[in-house]
Amino acid sequence: MMTSGVAGAPAADRTTELRSRFEVVRSFTMELVRDLGDEDCAVQSMPDVSPTKWHLAHTSWFFENFLLQPELDDYRVFDPAYGYLFNSYYNSVGSMHPRAQRGLITRPSLSAVLDYREHVDAQMARLLDRGLPAEQQALVELGLNHEQQHQELLLTDIKHVLSHNPTNPSYRTTVEAVRGAAPALSWHRFDEALVEIGDAGEGFAYDNERPRHRHYLAGFELASRPVTNAEFRAFVDDGGYQDPLLWLSDGWEALARDGIRGPLYWRDGGDREFTLAGERDVDDHAPVAHVSYYEADAYARWAGARLPTEFEWEHAARGQAVEGNFVDGGPLQPQAAQATGLAQQFGDVWEWTASSYAPYPGFRVAEGAVGEYNGKFMCNQYVLRGGSCVSSASHLRGSYRNFFYPDARWQFSGIRLAKDS
Amino acid sequence: MMTSGVAGAPAADRTTELRSRFEVVRSFTMELVRDLGDEDCAVQSMPDVSPTKWHLAHTSWFFENFLLQPELDDYRVFDPAYGYLFNSYYNSVGSMHPRAQRGLITRPSLSAVLDYREHVDAQMARLLDRGLPAEQQALVELGLNHEQQHQELLLTDIKHVLSHNPTNPSYRTTVEAVRGAAPALSWHRFDEALVEIGDAGEGFAYDNERPRHRHYLAGFELASRPVTNAEFRAFVDDGGYQDPLLWLSDGWEALARDGIRGPLYWRDGGDREFTLAGERDVDDHAPVAHVSYYEADAYARWAGARLPTEFEWEHAARGQAVEGNFVDGGPLQPQAAQATGLAQQFGDVWEWTASSYAPYPGFRVAEGAVGEYNGKFMCNQYVLRGGSCVSSASHLRGSYRNFFYPDARWQFSGIRLAKDS
Amino acid sequence: MMTSGVAGAPAADRTTELRSRFEVVRSFTMELVRDLGDEDCAVQSMPDVSPTKWHLAHTSWFFENFLLQPELDDYRVFDPAYGYLFNSYYNSVGSMHPRAQRGLITRPSLSAVLDYREHVDAQMARLLDRGLPAEQQALVELGLNHEQQHQELLLTDIKHVLSHNPTNPSYRTTVEAVRGAAPALSWHRFDEALVEIGDAGEGFAYDNERPRHRHYLAGFELASRPVTNAEFRAFVDDGGYQDPLLWLSDGWEALARDGIRGPLYWRDGGDREFTLAGERDVDDHAPVAHVSYYEADAYARWAGARLPTEFEWEHAARGQAVEGNFVDGGPLQPQAAQATGLAQQFGDVWEWTASSYAPYPGFRVAEGAVGEYNGKFMCNQYVLRGGSCVSSASHLRGSYRNFFYPDARWQFSGIRLAKDS
Amino acid sequence: MMTSGVAGAPAADRTTELRSRFEVVRSFTMELVRDLGDEDCAVQSMPDVSPTKWHLAHTSWFFENFLLQPELDDYRVFDPAYGYLFNSYYNSVGSMHPRAQRGLITRPSLSAVLDYREHVDAQMARLLDRGLPAEQQALVELGLNHEQQHQELLLTDIKHVLSHNPTNPSYRTTVEAVRGAAPALSWHRFDEALVEIGDAGEGFAYDNERPRHRHYLAGFELASRPVTNAEFRAFVDDGGYQDPLLWLSDGWEALARDGIRGPLYWRDGGDREFTLAGERDVDDHAPVAHVSYYEADAYARWAGARLPTEFEWEHAARGQAVEGNFVDGGPLQPQAAQATGLAQQFGDVWEWTASSYAPYPGFRVAEGAVGEYNGKFMCNQYVLRGGSCVSSASHLRGSYRNFFYPDARWQFSGIRLAKDS
Repeated sequence: MMTSGVAGAPAADRTTELRSRFEVVRSFTMELVRDLGDEDCAVQSMPDVSPTKWHLAHTSWFFENFLLQPELDDYRVFDPAYGYLFNSYYNSVGSMHPRAQRGLITRPSLSAVLDYREHVDAQMARLLDRGLPAEQQALVELGLNHEQQHQELLLTDIKHVLSHNPTNPSYRTTVEAVRGAAPALSWHRFDEALVEIGDAGEGFAYDNERPRHRHYLAGFELASRPVTNAEFRAFVDDGGYQDPLLWLSDGWEALARDGIRGPLYWRDGGDREFTLAGERDVDDHAPVAHVSYYEADAYARWAGARLPTEFEWEHAARGQAVEGNFVDGGPLQPQAAQATGLAQQFGDVWEWTASSYAPYPGFRVAEGAVGEYNGKFMCNQYVLRGGSCVSSASHLRGSYRNFFYPDARWQFSGIRLAKDS
Repeated sequence: MMTSGVAGAPAADRTTELRSRFEVVRSFTMELVRDLGDEDCAVQSMPDVSPTKWHLAHTSWFFENFLLQPELDDYRVFDPAYGYLFNSYYNSVGSMHPRAQRGLITRPSLSAVLDYREHVDAQMARLLDRGLPAEQQALVELGLNHEQQHQELLLTDIKHVLSHNPTNPSYRTTVEAVRGAAPALSWHRFDEALVEIGDAGEGFAYDNERPRHRHYLAGFELASRPVTNAEFRAFVDDGGYQDPLLWLSDGWEALARDGIRGPLYWRDGGDREFTLAGERDVDDHAPVAHVSYYEADAYARWAGARLPTEFEWEHAARGQAVEGNFVDGGPLQPQAAQATGLAQQFGDVWEWTASSYAPYPGFRVAEGAVGEYNGKFMCNQYVLRGGSCVSSASHLRGSYRNFFYPDARWQFSGIRLAKDS
Repeated sequence: MMTSGVAGAPAADRTTELRSRFEVVRSFTMELVRDLGDEDCAVQSMPDVSPTKWHLAHTSWFFENFLLQPELDDYRVFDPAYGYLFNSYYNSVGSMHPRAQRGLITRPSLSAVLDYREHVDAQMARLLDRGLPAEQQALVELGLNHEQQHQELLLTDIKHVLSHNPTNPSYRTTVEAVRGAAPALSWHRFDEALVEIGDAGEGFAYDNERPRHRHYLAGFELASRPVTNAEFRAFVDDGGYQDPLLWLSDGWEALARDGIRGPLYWRDGGDREFTLAGERDVDDHAPVAHVSYYEADAYARWAGARLPTEFEWEHAARGQAVEGNFVDGGPLQPQAAQATGLAQQFGDVWEWTASSYAPYPGFRVAEGAVGEYNGKFMCNQYVLRGGSCVSSASHLRGSYRNFFYPDARWQFSGIRLAKDS
Repeated sequence: MMTSGVAGAPAADRTTELRSRFEVVRSFTMELVRDLGDEDCAVQSMPDVSPTKWHLAHTSWFFENFLLQPELDDYRVFDPAYGYLFNSYYNSVGSMHPRAQRGLITRPSLSAVLDYREHVDAQMARLLDRGLPAEQQALVELGLNHEQQHQELLLTDIKHVLSHNPTNPSYRTTVEAVRGAAPALSWHRFDEALVEIGDAGEGFAYDNERPRHRHYLAGFELASRPVTNAEFRAFVDDGGYQDPLLWLSDGWEALARDGIRGPLYWRDGGDREFTLAGERDVDDHAPVAHVSYYEADAYARWAGARLPTEFEWEHAARGQAVEGNFVDGGPLQPQAAQATGLAQQFGDVWEWTASSYAPYPGFRVAEGAVGEYNGKFMCNQYVLRGGSCVSSASHLRGSYRNFFYPDARWQFSGIRLAKDS
């Protein structure tokens, strides 16, 4: 669980800010589903994907379960069945609907779930109006960050759903990409150092970013920008997917098992790709996206480089502003880098790191249900850093740790190279 | 494929009758989906189940593909993508969307599919107004019988979908069962005979009911009514599911593999069951339904009897009127037998027979795509006879052959016993 | 279970004959494993295959369990663990080792199992010397026929095991094929008739061949000999494996699932094949073998014919002597037909029939464990008739029913065509 | 690949030592298979397990392929097929027999494989007599360490094979355990430090132990000895396997998927266990073995502790002699700790660490085939340290990194606890 870094500040001021932020975040979710039909919102294309409707309900359940029920004495639960249906993985809270069957829940309908959201929003407004102690403020903040995570998943999940439709539907037809050549790749050098890693306590952070701790780094170099589609196509054209010596053993097996021959949404051998605006030409200069950890690692080996550790990445990101191509008004597609220097660490594509997702030294799981938020997933997954074109800017920071299984490809996951000095 | 038994009749009269029947059958489909939401219609709960929306579109595609396109010179295809999306298994017509992914098609929306139906209905009206030669009349008739098959599947499929919802939703709340004790089971004796089996040519029949042919039957006895829930519960209570000597070897394996301990929709050990009206008490006197061939066979062995062959069943049904509990105004649940004599051969539950689904002697697959209608499924399936509480009365007859894999349980499939004389 | 057709004959004479037959059959099993190493005898290449060692032990267990234990008061069980290890599927006798794990039983060693055989043989000699009542004579006869079935399985199983070895080992290097052109295929016509089917009671028969009963046959024609390798290659070359319209729906799925492109042991596109003598050129004139029911059915459709029913086959075989290419001194490979007339009904290859394996009218499962011999497998399998090049001549007769799942290919299974008159 | 730390020493002396070590290691392998039968050596009980015969051949193939063929001009390959059959995973060397089918190779027989070993030994003696340059000496040393790894796998694999036999056979009946109470668990404290991790270059080491590098450690405490069977049973008895809050999410899924309720070889709820001497009572005081990473992690959480990182473990082991219960003359079972202080870091059980198996900073894959030795497995596995009761003492050292998937349980894998200072 997180604890607020500003727990000592006057609670009233903080509540006003929270209330405003609550409205902004919650209404942005509604903005995201504006153009989706009832059926778009109901379907689950693989066990990892959740239906849009489920995201809409689960994020509301979070507030109902962790705030409204414990804090409002007169709170009326919207529907007792929702506690079972829309619990994701909180065993402390009770049993839950099987993840792989989320797409079978035709009722409650989308309309009923939207009513649920309104109900929760109204009651949360009442609760926030009343003012909240710091611990509950922190829970609201956690709930909003949680909702922002689900906003991103909602977009990557609906992309996956729509990609299975042979009619190539678009999520939003107005998506457009700025085309332009990316600058040549250059290397940025960092000297060996004993660095501080993890959240510095200046704002919200997840428990997995804590505690801040010391980490020794040998000297290394980091690429100035992510690998582009054109660069990745050179790897494909060079027979990269046919040479076992380039691959981790598990990656090589995954290629055969899943019949993988290129990034998830590439079509026609990499000339076309499926996007949230339907199928279109691949932008050669934009960062390659939707590759697995295995593909990222194999590309790096082919290129004579390696993936950075999450510690190297965080060290390099220190002091950088969180600026870039995000979900906020962006085209929902990675864009070609335009800046020189160390570019695009935030936004465009999540960058696979060489680091297995593990607790930081001294990590403690929080008491209660929110203790299940992160800790139990610290196994078999790899850390990604920096956020993507479907992340919210206000959700990101240098210490943020995202994590997925190494064969996951449906996120906007890309590659930044590193090497030893 | 079928050929009409009245090919020699004046085409005009026949067309009028067909046009009327077309409207009745097509509008009954719409009646069936009256209370379903968009999401109910989109979801697929297992590969064998098709979404309601798919049934609505596929039955229309049948008319568009086999009648409107070949017969109307100026016909405008509603949407070229539908030919791929809504082809079921006609390889002659072209490639098709994978069956197991029918539930991922969020677009076209239900609304678009209903437009498609209206478009097809209007064009079919135009075609039928024009008058049709006998061969095309036969195709219309085939299309309507095909739609009636899908009406039944639509109901068994939506029952399966809704049964996965832990909130126990109902398809139609007005479903009600007449309760009353069933008469005691008695046996009807039939002497050995060389009988005629198959369609006698007095009306529509599927190709798999032809040609009519001679079959030798030894003497046998047939039970007066299907096995009831109470009778089946006695089998369960006697340890029927734990005794391998009662089961076919494949059935015994299926029990272990699927964790089967009773009929598909029984709950709480057989006190409650899921129905199209939601969960309710089991009616002891009604025929047991939703059992596999394996369960039917094991019950029969436990009861010291056997399943009838499809030839015995058809011979016994000869001369009986097609009367009983059907989808037409019925409660959508099997009802306790009320009549004495040989009761309930039609309606309530399909009756598993001991006959593997096979071509009749002299069977020939029709030329063209409709030749794929039946013949290629004549392997590994078992014949069921008589129709169920969700079949249309006008769709049934004594020679009708339904067929499913022996482990199928989501149809209203029940048991009638037989024994050697 | 079977009952002897000569139950009324003097027991003593019969016992002498049985004792002689016991020695012949049991020693022929030993002859079959003469050239196999310990490891050859231990391995299981798929769940359907049993290790040679298991066949050797299981056939002995049959005599120990059904005769020595019940009949010899002072009988000492060789090893109590064997009852669990070497029971095949007799639930009445007790629990058993899982079939798929038969290949994990490294102990008892082959040597111990051979001691077991000697022990059983010695005790059986003692029992047979003593003389036996008719019912026990029948059990001995059943045990010997059972052993002959396992002799054939032993050969098809070891062929499957050795075929997985990239060094192409041979079971017996002396196997040799007579080459020579087969006569052109002709058709033999049979008129409609009400025929008698099943064992006529003149000798041993399995329970599944009983009771003899009447069956009506329409007129039909039967091909003079099985389909040859050259004929089957024409089907392959014509794109037979690529045309869905030629295949049963389940067969078409099996092709894709298992990557099937030709008979099981064909290699290099049908130029070479794996045999019990290692890899060698395909004999164009010999009957094609190791095809599934699906392949047989598809070939027949392509050829404008169909498979015969088991009743047609048996009717045509009436009066024919059981002569042909059998395991007794044969080359362990199908051979080109040399005779004209209706040739090769016995030997060379088992012939798939269109008949699903089902009980004959009036069939009753025997009391006791031997009742599990046949009845519980009467589902989802198809009947093959006539025996193969690895069957014993003395094991076959016109009423003999073999049965396998329609996707089975590791037996010497071939194709004889039929058509309606 | 490794390079010898003593490359500068006179080659001749080193060759003498190598030749002696070659004889010792190779003959110890033969000692290990002394009591196994041909069939014991042929069988594969799961894809992760290799048959004993395969281990015997593969270790010889290593010398033939990497030394005899390149270095002896007149070398005659023993059998060209062996290059395909006994290559494990060296894609650079050529294609290979599928891992899951190693148990189907009945030929070459065990006897032929033993001839192969003799042939390779004789030729290696010739090569070693001739004297070798440092690079080839290093390859011999790698081959011997490789063989020692396979000696341990041979024992854990045959234990797995024999455990599937319902007759509970023993590998070696003379195995005996010293019983005695283990000392109470105490904690050893280590202060924060910037430490050196990895091979110090004083002898042989694998490439994955290099390069030596700096690592920052916060203060921590390490348990004095591994968790005992009695301690682990307390976790089981406390409902440890039923409480999802104790488990990593992937671990909780593995419990359900595989039906896990205790350590792999525990039987009767933990009273009995299967050992290399057959089934016997569990020794309460001995370290628990055959647990997965998930079980180790869950136990640690239940105990209010955590697993150590591999860096903490190595730091704590610095300066300790490699002494303990090894395969060299030991009982082939973990034994109760007898010493006080930091005990049993070497021998008895491998200790799961919290560290995902990853390359050390600056790690480079070697040129050529031996570059495939370690690097391609650095994903999804967890590091274990210290060696077990079936490891050779001469094979171990403080920097040694073993690695397995987190669900692996067939190694002698146990648990040592750690906690933050």
